Amino acid sequence: MNTSIHTAPATRGPSDHDVRTQIVDAATAYFTRYGYEKTTVSDLAKEIGFSKAYIYKFFDSKQAIGEVICANRLAEMRRAVDAAIADAGSASDRFRRMFRAFIEAGTQLFFEDRKLYDIAATAAGEHWPSVQAYQRYVEELIARIVREGRESGEFERKTPLDETANAICLVMKPYVNPLLLQYNLEGVQDATLRLSNLVLRSLAP
Amino acid sequence: MNTSIHTAPATRGPSDHDVRTQIVDAATAYFTRYGYEKTTVSDLAKEIGFSKAYIYKFFDSKQAIGEVICANRLAEMRRAVDAAIADAGSASDRFRRMFRAFIEAGTQLFFEDRKLYDIAATAAGEHWPSVQAYQRYVEELIARIVREGRESGEFERKTPLDETANAICLVMKPYVNPLLLQYNLEGVQDATLRLSNLVLRSLAP
Repeated sequence: MNTSIHTAPATRGPSDHDVRTQIVDAATAYFTRYGYEKTTVSDLAKEIGFSKAYIYKFFDSKQAIGEVICANRLAEMRRAVDAAIADAGSASDRFRRMFRAFIEAGTQLFFEDRKLYDIAATAAGEHWPSVQAYQRYVEELIARIVREGRESGEFERKTPLDETANAICLVMKPYVNPLLLQYNLEGVQDATLRLSNLVLRSLAP
Repeated sequence: MNTSIHTAPATRGPSDHDVRTQIVDAATAYFTRYGYEKTTVSDLAKEIGFSKAYIYKFFDSKQAIGEVICANRLAEMRRAVDAAIADAGSASDRFRRMFRAFIEAGTQLFFEDRKLYDIAATAAGEHWPSVQAYQRYVEELIARIVREGRESGEFERKTPLDETANAICLVMKPYVNPLLLQYNLEGVQDATLRLSNLVLRSLAP
């Protein structure tokens, strides 16, 4: 497993950075068209007009490139969720918006970027670092919202915070994990609403 | 789709019933050894010593046989769940036991009858009638427990019953649906406990 995002030595100049970006951009376009699983590093090299060896100078493997694409896409989803909850009036409202935003981001990935969804599903199935980081983001965001709701008196405080947050993560998992979302797309809007209501009832003081 | 369990004409004698049982028993053993997906009706016919045409006299397709096996296995799981909750002291206790029993029945199917699990997963993915009946059983059981808890004063009564029951179904779905359970086996005991606690907090009056 190559954690390619951060491992480019600091001594390398911006031109190396540019080459990496160029490879990632070309690979994103290529994967979007032909899918991640079926593409080889040779295919990519041919497409960009680089030698395979030159690409391997920047990325240890196809997965290392996929990892950067996945991290970029997940960062975009995080920004969408953060934006959706930014001006929420209460912790309950923040929770509802967060849940809806995760579903929107996930279904958009599923329906609009079908081929990139394949990378996300592979990444989720193989626990890539970018997916683990995303998972931590989800957990921390949920814990933060629960904490804020407790501080404002909206939510109960008897249950240990980590138990509450962890249980809510479990409720949301089938919709937040791209690997599972594909089995839960039917009636997903209604499901999210009902689950949000259930979770908020469980949080009532 | 053949609903083979009930479609044997009433005029057929018990010997037809015996032949059906013999085919189902042989198929269960064969699928358990070699898997459902890879087996053909020809394989089964050879194994039992029947002609393929004779088997088709009793079952329209391989799926029709798989459907009976699936229905039998799900009936066994239902009996296990019913037994687990039979002498529960309260609706909360009944709910906890039910959730645990579903997980136990599902994981047993997954680990001990790995090849039969393949049938269950296919059946869940393709919405076979037996799976739909099982799903209805789960929904009705949850609704019953919620109703009993409301009547005894253990659970809140403000939320419409069907909304509450449906939301709880959604919480349990990743563990009750064999297709999804395989992605949720890690730490499943702990997850069930935490989700049970969350659901019971949401049901508090």
